[in-house]
Amino acid sequence: MRKILLSHGEGGLATERLIESVFASKLSNAYLAEMEDSAIFELDGKKYAFTTDAFIVEPVFFPGGDIGKLAVSGVVNDLAAMGAKPLFFSADFIIEEGFSIDKLDIIVESFAKELKEISAVLVAADTKVVPIGQGGDIYIAVSAIGEVICEVGTHMIQSGDEIVISGDIARHSAAIISVRENIETEPTILSDCAPLWDLVNTAFESDAVIHAMRDATRGGLATILVELSNKSDTGMEIYQEKIPINPQVSVICELYGFDPLYLACEGVMVFFTAEDNAEKLLSVLKKHNLGKNAEIIGRVNNDIGVILHTPIGGKRKLIKLEGEQLPRIC
Amino acid sequence: MRKILLSHGEGGLATERLIESVFASKLSNAYLAEMEDSAIFELDGKKYAFTTDAFIVEPVFFPGGDIGKLAVSGVVNDLAAMGAKPLFFSADFIIEEGFSIDKLDIIVESFAKELKEISAVLVAADTKVVPIGQGGDIYIAVSAIGEVICEVGTHMIQSGDEIVISGDIARHSAAIISVRENIETEPTILSDCAPLWDLVNTAFESDAVIHAMRDATRGGLATILVELSNKSDTGMEIYQEKIPINPQVSVICELYGFDPLYLACEGVMVFFTAEDNAEKLLSVLKKHNLGKNAEIIGRVNNDIGVILHTPIGGKRKLIKLEGEQLPRIC
Repeated sequence: MRKILLSHGEGGLATERLIESVFASKLSNAYLAEMEDSAIFELDGKKYAFTTDAFIVEPVFFPGGDIGKLAVSGVVNDLAAMGAKPLFFSADFIIEEGFSIDKLDIIVESFAKELKEISAVLVAADTKVVPIGQGGDIYIAVSAIGEVICEVGTHMIQSGDEIVISGDIARHSAAIISVRENIETEPTILSDCAPLWDLVNTAFESDAVIHAMRDATRGGLATILVELSNKSDTGMEIYQEKIPINPQVSVICELYGFDPLYLACEGVMVFFTAEDNAEKLLSVLKKHNLGKNAEIIGRVNNDIGVILHTPIGGKRKLIKLEGEQLPRIC
Repeated sequence: MRKILLSHGEGGLATERLIESVFASKLSNAYLAEMEDSAIFELDGKKYAFTTDAFIVEPVFFPGGDIGKLAVSGVVNDLAAMGAKPLFFSADFIIEEGFSIDKLDIIVESFAKELKEISAVLVAADTKVVPIGQGGDIYIAVSAIGEVICEVGTHMIQSGDEIVISGDIARHSAAIISVRENIETEPTILSDCAPLWDLVNTAFESDAVIHAMRDATRGGLATILVELSNKSDTGMEIYQEKIPINPQVSVICELYGFDPLYLACEGVMVFFTAEDNAEKLLSVLKKHNLGKNAEIIGRVNNDIGVILHTPIGGKRKLIKLEGEQLPRIC
């Protein structure tokens, strides 16, 4: 009997194959075929975005956030990546029997706080309790509707575009690893988990021409670049020494043999600007609290695939991850 | 330490108290305060409905349906109850490690089939895998956006309104009980689980004036009447002998001591029509495949609470259930 494996949920090739064989064959349509972070549809001639995500992070509390903050951030960032301002949210809290109500209280509090900060509203919610499994857990499924403020999309990426990253990479995964492995760093590595709508809106208010955006979540920066390169039929080259990374995060990665290019961020947006627009965008991002580590990391070309230029002059072709290096991170 | 209990998820008073103490204090807003089956919001002056539900039924396959069909039906019916035509859906499949891919295949197939029948589209989806808990389970969280075709709502219920039910009660719960308890009936009791948008749309096309609707799901007919009576500040009286019930369902209820008034339906809508409009509605419903057992069961008055008239001339005041009689039915 074919059975579901943990790797089927990790966002890599196993997930892709499951989705292809079980879901896509039955549920395919023009909206899902776009494979963007949010679906875009029209209501009365105006464009809206709709997205969903289920969050199953372990542990539910981590330095820099918790599953409540993560759930809002993840969904906001999927809307923001499609140029949409978050409006209305729904949330389903699926809680295992035995979960602490005090913990639930903190999680709901931080969920509410993040929503408030971006002036979005939770309009529909459900709470279900499931029998105890592996020990007091909680899953949150969130959907949200946003209004498209600026039309962007993978299809707009073209040779000559410049690639700008809004912050340092791999911090969310590194924070989760630190907790799981009981590593103490000084200072503590905080997850970058944050809703990026305000940052993206600020970018729109600059006069930089933005073609596409993607938040570098599961699979990390490398995976999203490879995906977008494949989908837009372009090549990309990025420069390793330009990619911002926190020194503590580098140490954790070396210690555990993780490649930070493949570790998840939860508060980092990758922008594709029209040629010669990156500097304009960069100066605006750097003034924003969530963009102060922003950098121009590379450009789009007419080649095939994504090439990483290493500091010593080497070239490395980036590939897509088979499975997530870390399960249950978002 | 205060802990989550199964009863916190059963939709009764324990759920209410949890929602009040943990969720409402932090997330309250004008949309949630309406406590309707869907939230109604405006986009460019036009009204839309948005709703969500998480499904955790045990067993996932039951006579008359499975969790896939149930998930679409439940959400469609929450939109339909607010007069909204289902448009766009999102779904999160949270699957335990070890769940059979063949079963998943059937579930996704029936999810897709139901969506197709009502011409709605799944535009956003996520699949996550969680470590094995109590043995190969699946949870589906579904959200959906609908367009309000006819404005209805609990606030429109008034003395004189007539109460019409679209079908026989308690069938979903009875079907689940039959499977769990290994009871064989001849014929098999089938869950009534069905998306009711087409039925509701047919009702709108009659010229009956409809003030409000509610699908009689968790807590059954009694619970939703008590809720609507409280909320609309009206009294209601219903007649037991008018309430349609399948004979096999009656037998199961007697055998196990369940009150069918409190058992869940998943394909039954309760309509509140303006005075003298019930007959018009009834004749239209009866012509529809999902409404052939429809009946006028009572009326709204100026009293307090919901009174059930028994066949022998007695009166019984209906109360709200403390907890669901059956956990994990939807």
